[in-house]
Amino acid sequence: MMTIPASEQLQHMKAHGYDAWLSYQSSLPIAVSAQYRPWCSAICAIEQHETIAAAATELLRGITSMLGVHTAITSAVPDQAHIALGTFGGMFGEASSYPADLFTPTDRESTGAEGFIIRTCPAERCIAIGAAEPVGVLYGVFHLLRLMGTGQPLDTLDEAVVPVNGLRMVDHWDNMDGSIERGYAGSSFLYEQQEFTANQERIRDYARLMSSIGINAICINNVNVHQHETQLITPRYLPDVAKLAGVFRVYGIRLYLSINYASPLELGGPETADPLNDAVRQWWKEKAAAIYSLIPDFGGVVVKADSENRPGPFTYGRNHADGANMLAEALQPYGGIVIWRCFVYNCKQDWRDRSTDRARAAYDHFKPLDGQFHDNVVLQIKNGPLDFQVREPVSPLLGGMEHTHQILEFQITQEYTGQQRHVCYLVPQWKEILEFDTCAQGRYAPVKHVVDGSLWGRARNGIAAVTNVGADWNWTGHLLAQANLYGYGRLAWDPDLSAEAIAVEWVKLVFGLDELVVTAITQMLMDSWPIYESYTSPLGVGWMVNPDHHYGPNVDGYEYSKWGTYHYADSKGIGVDRTVHSGSGYSSQYMGANAEQYESLEQCPDELLLFFHHVPYEHRLKSGTTVIQHIYDTHFTGAERAEALLSTWRELQGRMKQTYYEQVEARLEEQAEHAKEWRDQINTYFYRKSGIEDRERRMIY
Amino acid sequence: MMTIPASEQLQHMKAHGYDAWLSYQSSLPIAVSAQYRPWCSAICAIEQHETIAAAATELLRGITSMLGVHTAITSAVPDQAHIALGTFGGMFGEASSYPADLFTPTDRESTGAEGFIIRTCPAERCIAIGAAEPVGVLYGVFHLLRLMGTGQPLDTLDEAVVPVNGLRMVDHWDNMDGSIERGYAGSSFLYEQQEFTANQERIRDYARLMSSIGINAICINNVNVHQHETQLITPRYLPDVAKLAGVFRVYGIRLYLSINYASPLELGGPETADPLNDAVRQWWKEKAAAIYSLIPDFGGVVVKADSENRPGPFTYGRNHADGANMLAEALQPYGGIVIWRCFVYNCKQDWRDRSTDRARAAYDHFKPLDGQFHDNVVLQIKNGPLDFQVREPVSPLLGGMEHTHQILEFQITQEYTGQQRHVCYLVPQWKEILEFDTCAQGRYAPVKHVVDGSLWGRARNGIAAVTNVGADWNWTGHLLAQANLYGYGRLAWDPDLSAEAIAVEWVKLVFGLDELVVTAITQMLMDSWPIYESYTSPLGVGWMVNPDHHYGPNVDGYEYSKWGTYHYADSKGIGVDRTVHSGSGYSSQYMGANAEQYESLEQCPDELLLFFHHVPYEHRLKSGTTVIQHIYDTHFTGAERAEALLSTWRELQGRMKQTYYEQVEARLEEQAEHAKEWRDQINTYFYRKSGIEDRERRMIY
Repeated sequence: MMTIPASEQLQHMKAHGYDAWLSYQSSLPIAVSAQYRPWCSAICAIEQHETIAAAATELLRGITSMLGVHTAITSAVPDQAHIALGTFGGMFGEASSYPADLFTPTDRESTGAEGFIIRTCPAERCIAIGAAEPVGVLYGVFHLLRLMGTGQPLDTLDEAVVPVNGLRMVDHWDNMDGSIERGYAGSSFLYEQQEFTANQERIRDYARLMSSIGINAICINNVNVHQHETQLITPRYLPDVAKLAGVFRVYGIRLYLSINYASPLELGGPETADPLNDAVRQWWKEKAAAIYSLIPDFGGVVVKADSENRPGPFTYGRNHADGANMLAEALQPYGGIVIWRCFVYNCKQDWRDRSTDRARAAYDHFKPLDGQFHDNVVLQIKNGPLDFQVREPVSPLLGGMEHTHQILEFQITQEYTGQQRHVCYLVPQWKEILEFDTCAQGRYAPVKHVVDGSLWGRARNGIAAVTNVGADWNWTGHLLAQANLYGYGRLAWDPDLSAEAIAVEWVKLVFGLDELVVTAITQMLMDSWPIYESYTSPLGVGWMVNPDHHYGPNVDGYEYSKWGTYHYADSKGIGVDRTVHSGSGYSSQYMGANAEQYESLEQCPDELLLFFHHVPYEHRLKSGTTVIQHIYDTHFTGAERAEALLSTWRELQGRMKQTYYEQVEARLEEQAEHAKEWRDQINTYFYRKSGIEDRERRMIY
Repeated sequence: MMTIPASEQLQHMKAHGYDAWLSYQSSLPIAVSAQYRPWCSAICAIEQHETIAAAATELLRGITSMLGVHTAITSAVPDQAHIALGTFGGMFGEASSYPADLFTPTDRESTGAEGFIIRTCPAERCIAIGAAEPVGVLYGVFHLLRLMGTGQPLDTLDEAVVPVNGLRMVDHWDNMDGSIERGYAGSSFLYEQQEFTANQERIRDYARLMSSIGINAICINNVNVHQHETQLITPRYLPDVAKLAGVFRVYGIRLYLSINYASPLELGGPETADPLNDAVRQWWKEKAAAIYSLIPDFGGVVVKADSENRPGPFTYGRNHADGANMLAEALQPYGGIVIWRCFVYNCKQDWRDRSTDRARAAYDHFKPLDGQFHDNVVLQIKNGPLDFQVREPVSPLLGGMEHTHQILEFQITQEYTGQQRHVCYLVPQWKEILEFDTCAQGRYAPVKHVVDGSLWGRARNGIAAVTNVGADWNWTGHLLAQANLYGYGRLAWDPDLSAEAIAVEWVKLVFGLDELVVTAITQMLMDSWPIYESYTSPLGVGWMVNPDHHYGPNVDGYEYSKWGTYHYADSKGIGVDRTVHSGSGYSSQYMGANAEQYESLEQCPDELLLFFHHVPYEHRLKSGTTVIQHIYDTHFTGAERAEALLSTWRELQGRMKQTYYEQVEARLEEQAEHAKEWRDQINTYFYRKSGIEDRERRMIY
């Protein structure tokens, strides 16, 4: 193999999607760029702050690239029209050269620590971005660049933009050997061969990408903390962690670590990890002090305890409040938080045992502990009761825990949704979840108000998600999977954005403003989740994948396993009875109308029918068709629609970079092929099991 | 971990079964040992030959251990009663101190190169073991030691013992990294970390074990020859191979190597492996010369070509006769042979395609080539058309190839028969296969007469088997799995031995002569194959295992795969239609009555019904019950009988070494547990699929 010079390599990566939505394309329509140009001859940024500097540099880069004009960063207010960046207390403060009323006292109170105001000021001949903190200024710059990249007018800007959620986090499941658990975009760019990678440029570009979508927290290692990664909190690696935190800090991102609950034992401390043991408590306090001495803004720790064979407080007869609170005490003096995952269930279930229901587990474990957690403990709750299936009900813990800080956990990486070999734009799924009314306290209480803290007036709130990035040139393997990463950040910032609006933004920023391209790709994205769902597991029943790696159809793949994930299909019917009446009673974990709706065979929505009920194949859905015919129909049309995605794409050839075109085409070809495999295996399985013919007499094997 | 001294380690291994059937136990009944003792005060062995020396040493070891007496090896005929060991041309030759008529001219002609005569000679006050060659003397000594270990009288010995099969081979599937493909007894004792192991003592003990059961050929590496192992035929490793061959040689064993058909390309020779290319032919000739210069008795090569992604002549548009003959020419000058495996099939089948039948493949590939192979090519034919399932019909190639040398391939390692975690004594299965009448040429033509060469008077004949040994202390993981290794050797020597007689021998040699122990373990062994079959895949349909590793139940594990291994179960019935009338026509590959029997739904034996026919679950078997009820019944009783094996074993506690007792008890406990898992998964699968109740209303999930 030839060695490619680093610069050439970077060009190659850029040609394949490395810049993602920060590519700042020069292809704006002339009318648009003509409108922008007058504002862009100078950038005024006076404050000496690394984040302000990064903001100004980013803006310079964007303007130069998009408009092809010369511009400069100045520390004196220029004569010509310009863009002014600063904090309310700094450049726009008392000694400001700008008028004091450029930002009113009301303005200054409206942004919080992370928001900003962006305002076109004809009198001062500037577009001013003002914020309470430097990070707000940076967010404002990314906002402006997004407006420009999507061709929006700049002449009448006047808005306060404030993130709705406090914590907007991504979780890496990277291991230090370079592997990524559930990673589908190459190996880790954080680690290789048990060390941190030396590629600071990529780390900085990653921080830029994350900051541009408002991410303010990154956990840098797998929640399954293996032996080697346990050492991340030791002097062996803390200097490297601190270096990474330093890069993130510039971009307003706090670094978090996943920790091994058994760290004291494994790192030569006390011979126990009992959270009520004094020596253990002291050990963690000293550990916290050591971490914060190097990383003063260290975010905190993420903990997967007593789950899937990970150690935890159960070992010592303690509950999860004991376990989390002990860590919380250690972090409290420094403002750190403990993010405690609720993904706790019996992973050694006997498939014969129908009395145990994994879906119940998180609620059963944590609901009784509501109110017992310290103020700097935050529970992290997966969106559904199982595990990031293509379709699940919303976790009943969301809305069920009034007295506990909580964040919602999404999965950007497509573990069960096509593994970045299939296109599956997940923002519509996340929107549904965020809009779901939990019926908490008998009033409108959507998940988005649970997680943003407004429902119960709780401060520590937000969303976390398992990220989908890796060392692939385009970060996400499938180029279209970038839309999930982008969309996640945008949605965490503002859950009221529509999935379609987010898709349009991303498509324009990556592919440019060609109307046909924008319309076609947006439609592909919007269709993709329903398409994927239609040819995979039906009606909310989930799984039906190959064990372990979770790719590809295998209807009985988890049916006789220990994982608590069954469909109970027999010759007569299919589904899991989770009713109070005759099943596991899981439906009673919901409140009010939700509990009633899920309990009722008549009211239960079609798409979740088999999650809540075991029904005969001839059961008639609300849609009017039978369950078995629905399975056949959706699998035939799903595979057809996957094929159609490819046709749609092919119509776009020549309207984008060939390198973009080809990589997506190859993935869509694979998807179309593999959708047929899903179609045939699922249909054949149910045809062979039920003996019921397809009404349309299509080919089933 | 503490380091254990080598000698202590060896004692520990011996306590756990390392000596296997060569443990020469001192627990013989007094009456028996008193009878033996008079003959055993001296061993007369005059000839200077490493094999004779090994024979005398072995006898000395056995006598000393079993009888606790002092004995000596002498080179002069002693005065007292003794055992005399020698060749007809040597110690019993013209210059012999023994009477010339101790062995008559008829005797001398009767033994061939490997047989021997053992005779009690009261006049000469000796038990004489005479043979044409030193290896026959060694076999005679092992024979005598077996008689003693099993308590047989020695006073009237007078028999010529001659192996029925010429080639009695074991194949190692060991890789040089120390792994063993389909190995269930620890890592390799031949290799570690890409080198030959240094443990010559273990190698020698292994050679003793193999020689004691008559093995005369060992292939030392996996038929799937990976990159590193391709180098075994290079100067890098040939000296190591030669050293190993030297140890084997003492014990009458020839060494074989599996070779990579693409060796010329991979080892820097011609850029092709086309068998008709002159440079390739020359390359192999030079390679053969190099091998034989170091190993003059090198046995030859084993080749898996064009199978499961291995390279082969198909790549160059040549057939398998072209491919094998080219290698045969290279080996011919030195007396080497090419063992060419017939395990060739399409391993990328589409499960939707019912017109392709993997069972047909070997016959379809090789039958047309009958008569085209050189005289030193031997086809190696797996016992069944698929792959060592618990039940398969006999391969129709056996009996189908009149003009081609062929050996039968068994699998001692229990890939599909419990992986040495379940007891499954395979000798009864092998016996059925050897006794199977192929109907070749319209007369009695059992497989055993095909493979011993007598049917068509062919000289190069015999049996090979994939061995089950590894670095575990007791060689085979499950102590009772030693019986398969032992039994294979004994059966290859003489296919007319009964499975039960072989079991009794092995049990006595390992556990001693306690009547209760012998009866109980023999019965366990004899029951074990039917028990394993009864709780695993039913009525000859095969598979239903987890993919890749092949352990544990998974009914649909291979149903939607590319491997050509399907059961086609639907709500109405199950089985593979291989009839001429309506199926793949595989049944026509058999001759005469066999073809007729398998084609006929009425005549087809129950145990192969689903191999040949797709039938409704309510189809009534010859046994009187229906297919579905048979599945339920056998799985319930199979699991019960597995449990009963454990009970039987527990009655033997205190009647054997505790170290033997405990290791087998642990495996039987696991088997009993896992048999329940098979029972429940298989029954549940078919209950759910068919909807038919068990008549006995037992628990199905």
